[in-house]
Amino acid sequence: MNDLERARACADKMYAGDKASRALGIDIEVSGAGSATATMQVRDDMVNGFNICHGGLIFTLADTAFAFACNAYDELTVAGSGHIEFLRPVHLHDTLRAVAREELRGERVGFYTVEVLDQDGSIVALFRGRSVSRGERLLGGQTDTENIEKTR
Amino acid sequence: MNDLERARACADKMYAGDKASRALGIDIEVSGAGSATATMQVRDDMVNGFNICHGGLIFTLADTAFAFACNAYDELTVAGSGHIEFLRPVHLHDTLRAVAREELRGERVGFYTVEVLDQDGSIVALFRGRSVSRGERLLGGQTDTENIEKTR
Amino acid sequence: MNDLERARACADKMYAGDKASRALGIDIEVSGAGSATATMQVRDDMVNGFNICHGGLIFTLADTAFAFACNAYDELTVAGSGHIEFLRPVHLHDTLRAVAREELRGERVGFYTVEVLDQDGSIVALFRGRSVSRGERLLGGQTDTENIEKTR
Amino acid sequence: MNDLERARACADKMYAGDKASRALGIDIEVSGAGSATATMQVRDDMVNGFNICHGGLIFTLADTAFAFACNAYDELTVAGSGHIEFLRPVHLHDTLRAVAREELRGERVGFYTVEVLDQDGSIVALFRGRSVSRGERLLGGQTDTENIEKTR
Repeated sequence: MNDLERARACADKMYAGDKASRALGIDIEVSGAGSATATMQVRDDMVNGFNICHGGLIFTLADTAFAFACNAYDELTVAGSGHIEFLRPVHLHDTLRAVAREELRGERVGFYTVEVLDQDGSIVALFRGRSVSRGERLLGGQTDTENIEKTR
Repeated sequence: MNDLERARACADKMYAGDKASRALGIDIEVSGAGSATATMQVRDDMVNGFNICHGGLIFTLADTAFAFACNAYDELTVAGSGHIEFLRPVHLHDTLRAVAREELRGERVGFYTVEVLDQDGSIVALFRGRSVSRGERLLGGQTDTENIEKTR
Repeated sequence: MNDLERARACADKMYAGDKASRALGIDIEVSGAGSATATMQVRDDMVNGFNICHGGLIFTLADTAFAFACNAYDELTVAGSGHIEFLRPVHLHDTLRAVAREELRGERVGFYTVEVLDQDGSIVALFRGRSVSRGERLLGGQTDTENIEKTR
Repeated sequence: MNDLERARACADKMYAGDKASRALGIDIEVSGAGSATATMQVRDDMVNGFNICHGGLIFTLADTAFAFACNAYDELTVAGSGHIEFLRPVHLHDTLRAVAREELRGERVGFYTVEVLDQDGSIVALFRGRSVSRGERLLGGQTDTENIEKTR
């Protein structure tokens, strides 16, 4: 497998089990190791009391792109922390696109930036994530949740 | 109205329209201005590809508690930014409780800390939010989404 | 040694070697494990091109209070990350006081909040730090910089 | 003046008054609007009690690069917040280089990333800053500290 094939195999495995992202209608595209794009349309059950998209779901979209970007190396990697700046309100039926890129990838820790854009290409949020590798394979064999348990 | 009554009136108004939080089964309790508790049980459609709760939904729970804490003063207030540290994996059927408290509230900007605990009282995430007041009333009259539009 | 005695012994050892903090005229007071207060007066060589205190030096003061707060347990602990919100400009000759408190201390990672106040008691900055323990003693024996080298 | 000339004129004006950066031996190079490089050698009075460079001074270097990057447009701009990840210890006599780039610049708010590298080109810290424009000119006329006072 080359890098892109491996990145896509990791994404396929993750997406298959990712009921949360699928329940939110999030689609994923992986164009290379360390980068991923996640898209989501703001549904009626995604708006808050101010009738704009709940910020938590904007974060969730960005966090999803981040997770697929950092898990492209066949190393099980989890989010250590995430930060988001909300730049513009998002409305019902808007289509959001979260584009993740790798800033830095060390032995165990990585840093990713995700820009969240609306259908007009305007940036609505800026996300940064710190990833922590668990030091085990993602592909081949069952992902061992027990090990995730022990990590933190 | 005293402070607690006003805080609860704000929460009631927000919760009534907050389809996102209700779709996730989030309950809210407001015990005073500047503090709020949000609870959520991790459902089958909330786990990610590693079979643990999607971090974005943990953020969403914390962000919800934050939103109700900072909107207790009858001033329409939105999230400017949020930061979360993921400390421990969360599993299917866990019941999470996000407890928001006010660190600081200035004329326009406020800072809140939210601890997310599981059913055993173990802390699973630590959230910090910066709120920005829009300078308009929340109660009485229709919340004007157009104004939110203009803010940022 | 009780907790306070140990906290103070750690602080004394750190402060003796802390040429940076002393060069900035920073004083430290430790009132218990996990909390510390650092004070600094803004000197002529601390202002930036806008004639206000350089934000980096406000961070440095807060980071110093954080370092003394998290190193109170006779475990060598370093800063993993720091975040600061600048709330108000600080002027020449102002006297700043950074008050650090522990939010959470896990086996290896800790979280601290530092409020930076001016001589009027107004908050000028809000700092948050994440500490990482190196798993070795601080007191008794020479602090081994080589080990710090290997950590990150 | 073209963009680069204006960026350099702003930098010259800021640097002339920036006693803090000069006292730390920080040099600045501006290669275009929105980007700046700051260098500093770790002196004897910059190490902490663990005999490594005080993290606050690494932040100060990064924050300086950020300040010169965001003040290149002849609009007085201050730091709203800063975040730093400390990735590797820095030693006495190391020469650090902080390279700032613009991620996003809105009407009033901007986001910048600064990588801090040592003399071997290894990244030692990753900084992110949020800038806030004050809506007044930087060049031509005296910079009015009173206005900064009123902002926050």
